[in-house]
Amino acid sequence: MRFELTTLGTGAALPARGRYPTAQLLNVGERLYLIDCGEGTQERLRTVGANFNRISRVLISHLHGDHYLGLMGLISSMHLMGRRTELHVYGPPELGDIVHMQLKASGTWLRYPLHLHHTRPESGAEVFTDDRVQVTALALKHRIPCTGFVFREHPRPRPLLRDQVHRIPHFQRNAVKAGEDLHLEDGTVVPNAELTQDPPAQRAYAYCSDTAYDPGLVPYLRGVDLLYHEATFTEQLSARARETMHATGRQAGLIAREAGVGTLLLGHFSSRYKSEEPLLREAREVFPNTLAASEGALFPVGPRSMV
Amino acid sequence: MRFELTTLGTGAALPARGRYPTAQLLNVGERLYLIDCGEGTQERLRTVGANFNRISRVLISHLHGDHYLGLMGLISSMHLMGRRTELHVYGPPELGDIVHMQLKASGTWLRYPLHLHHTRPESGAEVFTDDRVQVTALALKHRIPCTGFVFREHPRPRPLLRDQVHRIPHFQRNAVKAGEDLHLEDGTVVPNAELTQDPPAQRAYAYCSDTAYDPGLVPYLRGVDLLYHEATFTEQLSARARETMHATGRQAGLIAREAGVGTLLLGHFSSRYKSEEPLLREAREVFPNTLAASEGALFPVGPRSMV
Repeated sequence: MRFELTTLGTGAALPARGRYPTAQLLNVGERLYLIDCGEGTQERLRTVGANFNRISRVLISHLHGDHYLGLMGLISSMHLMGRRTELHVYGPPELGDIVHMQLKASGTWLRYPLHLHHTRPESGAEVFTDDRVQVTALALKHRIPCTGFVFREHPRPRPLLRDQVHRIPHFQRNAVKAGEDLHLEDGTVVPNAELTQDPPAQRAYAYCSDTAYDPGLVPYLRGVDLLYHEATFTEQLSARARETMHATGRQAGLIAREAGVGTLLLGHFSSRYKSEEPLLREAREVFPNTLAASEGALFPVGPRSMV
Repeated sequence: MRFELTTLGTGAALPARGRYPTAQLLNVGERLYLIDCGEGTQERLRTVGANFNRISRVLISHLHGDHYLGLMGLISSMHLMGRRTELHVYGPPELGDIVHMQLKASGTWLRYPLHLHHTRPESGAEVFTDDRVQVTALALKHRIPCTGFVFREHPRPRPLLRDQVHRIPHFQRNAVKAGEDLHLEDGTVVPNAELTQDPPAQRAYAYCSDTAYDPGLVPYLRGVDLLYHEATFTEQLSARARETMHATGRQAGLIAREAGVGTLLLGHFSSRYKSEEPLLREAREVFPNTLAASEGALFPVGPRSMV
């Protein structure tokens, strides 16, 4: 099943240097999730050829403009393009008021159901579960309430051991794949462990933007294949990072190392950096398997996402 | 004195085909006015090399997203770029609530004074007067309250007739240029008409987007050098134009002809038109001196703005 991330915008608050404000598109088994939606996101989606009427859910981390100002335009364009299927938007409580006030002012009656859900920045709290993933929240440390997200795919069925398949009646195979022991007609019980092997690990993607360095996140990031962590500044500006509640490249690396993630992905680069090299360099010093996001780049989530 | 218009976006509600949502930059004697501000306007301003901290006033015609969704991002970027000079924004009353709600949600305390002024869609009502122009409103006919704008430069001084200059004492020359008769010490009164000639006409630019065809606008558009009038559809879709309260290319031409403007400029092209040619063609059938706006194009306001 496909599980991959497209980074649409990698800039910080001030758009510049060809970087766009934050937005990411996550594809899990052809279901599309949009994570943050800075100004111009609908144009970025067109650029990467995404059919944005296929987006089922939009998750907004917080209400700094570079993370949500493209949402109204996207909602409106979906309407104009004839969308009929419901759209779920997750974000801080004020987001609902902001969206409804603007729909009202523009006299727009959407042709599709729009559901606005409140998020709480409380690590581990469930945001939603659908047929592809379970999404839980991360309490990020920022100047205003800010929620990160962990997307974890559902457990996959346990593969049957080839040389044991003949022992399992057809009608019981799904139960055994789901982990149950096999109860035969003669009363024998065959433990599941004799019949199946462990399935591939559940893949997971975690999104941390914007946040100060916070080791409190580590327990919630363990086992994550791909961790996106903001890296607004280099260590040279660590005082500025603390003051504005952002992270440095090195701090992102430390979080990735502590959590033992598969791959670290950096983004949210301050417009003062012409190139993301210095940020990448200092993250790699503590966590070598680090990549830099770029506009339109694709990152598979799972054991494949290696440098 | 420079008086010129840059069209930054010429698309209609649904951005497509390389067209951006509506925004225009008017430069009158190096004072910059932004007229409407669709999503991504700040990026367009960068593209044309405009220093947007020099924009003193922003005028929003109405609250359909393609005319104002770029405003919050612009306000925020001005703040991040260290703006200290005040910014005046003119728009429908709800715009103030929309802006303030979002500033509050983002925890932003602007470093510069932001003044939000309510407009009324009442033709002839003054919007503001500054040292360059007087701006008055146009009551456009649209699905929600919508205000157009006429920018008229102040009367220019009456040039002194070269062969009469010697008769006018230095300290009285400004008064004569302003139109006063000359009072000499011996009691003689020289009528102004003997000393000056008519100054060049006051140049004017009128902005009509979005609007249904409305001949009621004509009296307010007389004497205008450059008229921007929306042309969302061709005549073939005149029923759709009526229904959505937009105009056709031909209707824009009829308004320009009735008002006897200098040049007609078309924009707000529906995304169904790959090229603006059919819209331009039908406007030119009734008003030959018609141009089509395009992204980043510059149009002088005045007798020079000829096809």
